[in-house]
Amino acid sequence: MKKILIINTGGTFNKVYNPLTGNLDIEPKGKAIRSIAKAWLTKFKIKNIIGKDSLEMTNEDRKDIIKTIQESERKNIIIVHGTDTMNITASYLKKANLKKKIILTGAMVPYAIASIEATANLCSAYGFLENVDNNGVYISMNGIIQDYKRAIKNKEKGYFEESK
Amino acid sequence: MKKILIINTGGTFNKVYNPLTGNLDIEPKGKAIRSIAKAWLTKFKIKNIIGKDSLEMTNEDRKDIIKTIQESERKNIIIVHGTDTMNITASYLKKANLKKKIILTGAMVPYAIASIEATANLCSAYGFLENVDNNGVYISMNGIIQDYKRAIKNKEKGYFEESK
Amino acid sequence: MKKILIINTGGTFNKVYNPLTGNLDIEPKGKAIRSIAKAWLTKFKIKNIIGKDSLEMTNEDRKDIIKTIQESERKNIIIVHGTDTMNITASYLKKANLKKKIILTGAMVPYAIASIEATANLCSAYGFLENVDNNGVYISMNGIIQDYKRAIKNKEKGYFEESK
Amino acid sequence: MKKILIINTGGTFNKVYNPLTGNLDIEPKGKAIRSIAKAWLTKFKIKNIIGKDSLEMTNEDRKDIIKTIQESERKNIIIVHGTDTMNITASYLKKANLKKKIILTGAMVPYAIASIEATANLCSAYGFLENVDNNGVYISMNGIIQDYKRAIKNKEKGYFEESK
Repeated sequence: MKKILIINTGGTFNKVYNPLTGNLDIEPKGKAIRSIAKAWLTKFKIKNIIGKDSLEMTNEDRKDIIKTIQESERKNIIIVHGTDTMNITASYLKKANLKKKIILTGAMVPYAIASIEATANLCSAYGFLENVDNNGVYISMNGIIQDYKRAIKNKEKGYFEESK
Repeated sequence: MKKILIINTGGTFNKVYNPLTGNLDIEPKGKAIRSIAKAWLTKFKIKNIIGKDSLEMTNEDRKDIIKTIQESERKNIIIVHGTDTMNITASYLKKANLKKKIILTGAMVPYAIASIEATANLCSAYGFLENVDNNGVYISMNGIIQDYKRAIKNKEKGYFEESK
Repeated sequence: MKKILIINTGGTFNKVYNPLTGNLDIEPKGKAIRSIAKAWLTKFKIKNIIGKDSLEMTNEDRKDIIKTIQESERKNIIIVHGTDTMNITASYLKKANLKKKIILTGAMVPYAIASIEATANLCSAYGFLENVDNNGVYISMNGIIQDYKRAIKNKEKGYFEESK
Repeated sequence: MKKILIINTGGTFNKVYNPLTGNLDIEPKGKAIRSIAKAWLTKFKIKNIIGKDSLEMTNEDRKDIIKTIQESERKNIIIVHGTDTMNITASYLKKANLKKKIILTGAMVPYAIASIEATANLCSAYGFLENVDNNGVYISMNGIIQDYKRAIKNKEKGYFEESK
């Protein structure tokens, strides 16, 4: 198997209900991802950084992602990221020309609320990396697993679609 | 995206609790797989055949699988199958030289009891097919996504491992 | 069995995740309560009114609750209500002197996010009504099933306690 | 609140899937009951004995239950029990004339497979004990919370009904 690094940056994937405030907060330590690894009877290498909502992600944060990718010896990278700016971060990473296989994923619904979509997005990204030939930046969301330019969030419908 | 056919043959993946008997029965209509498609906000093409436990699978059943693969115009095939004889069926399919990309998957725990492992196995198979170059027969179980000869069930530990 | 009417007024019990907005909205038609009835293999008589968060509940709303109680022939009433003003509504109902057995319940965590607490609160209220002798206004939350004056929300800890 | 002792004797309520054998085994340490207490944000006093399927329960086991009830200072007792012989054990306890308030409960579906029914049965029993006046032996199953003679398992339909 290829060695994969999962960089967890936050987003809806990681949100949990806070009963004291009634809000959904981002769980910053990757509990959701580790819960998938445990149930899948496998192991993930996870690095938790940033811990933000997609809409609050800055270019400083994106530089942190690049630094984390560059510092890792692993050539296959999954980034868990909020969905609203996933394409912006993907484009930013593309320009950095990192010479790795990078795939961004996330969730429309928090893992802690309904676990299937988040699990499916992450694990289809994982399967994709086993075979991809070319360095590049990809997205895996809702069964669309493509070059990032071709996987677009439909904000009215609430899922990702393949661009025409 | 590639067009994928999911052939559902039964196995633990599809088992559901029967409160009248206290047994776990195989749900034959692919409810578990359709439940994943719905939650993933995507669509699957599913064909339900056989509906058996892995240990009851015969070579007649395996001929049915081959016939189903041959009759489909789709070149990318996921087979949901019981885990105990997954390697036997894979070997049988390999010998049939079907000139398609075929990946077998299943679950150690029924989707209806704990959904993550089954979802992860199926969706990593799905992601794998997006990129695989060579026709062949593969297995996707517990994060091992390989040529079928290299993904082996460890019956003591209860999960699949990569052969050395 | 006693005949019970469940008056569903909204609150956290009924909240569901809205993937388009990322917010938790109140599901107004009692899906959570009906889901419990179905899984419990029993039947509930449910009346959905108001559909509000606890903090938005007004005395006009409380008059609606009283009217609903008075118009029902049933003598045993469960009210599903937000937790923040559950005691205020209980006190209001007490003053109305309705000559029925009334118990308020709700949840700290939405049923759709984690179902056990909401189920336990509702079903312990249901069991309580089977045997209570005296008309009155009661609360059932987190294993505290008492006259409403003795079941108090601890906002720091996030659950109800018995008053000393 | 009344002080309640939960005596856990096994039964379907406690069954968990064993991925190595594919069987459902009784978890003997009361994990399911403790999971409910934790989610309900309350505390239970639990004593785990016997750990058997209902059909294997003997009169020796029933004597153990009586001994456990007699040795406890608590007057309010919930017994988690398999459903097939719940009425036999209830009748046996009735004859022992224990001068306590005893309620038997259990589940048609294991808590670990689908948690709502088991939770509702247990927590409605709990609510019932808060108010019951008379010593006796009761059953709480599927919304039927009655003297044990009036709560009867319908084996064709798979739930408990009130006898006419």
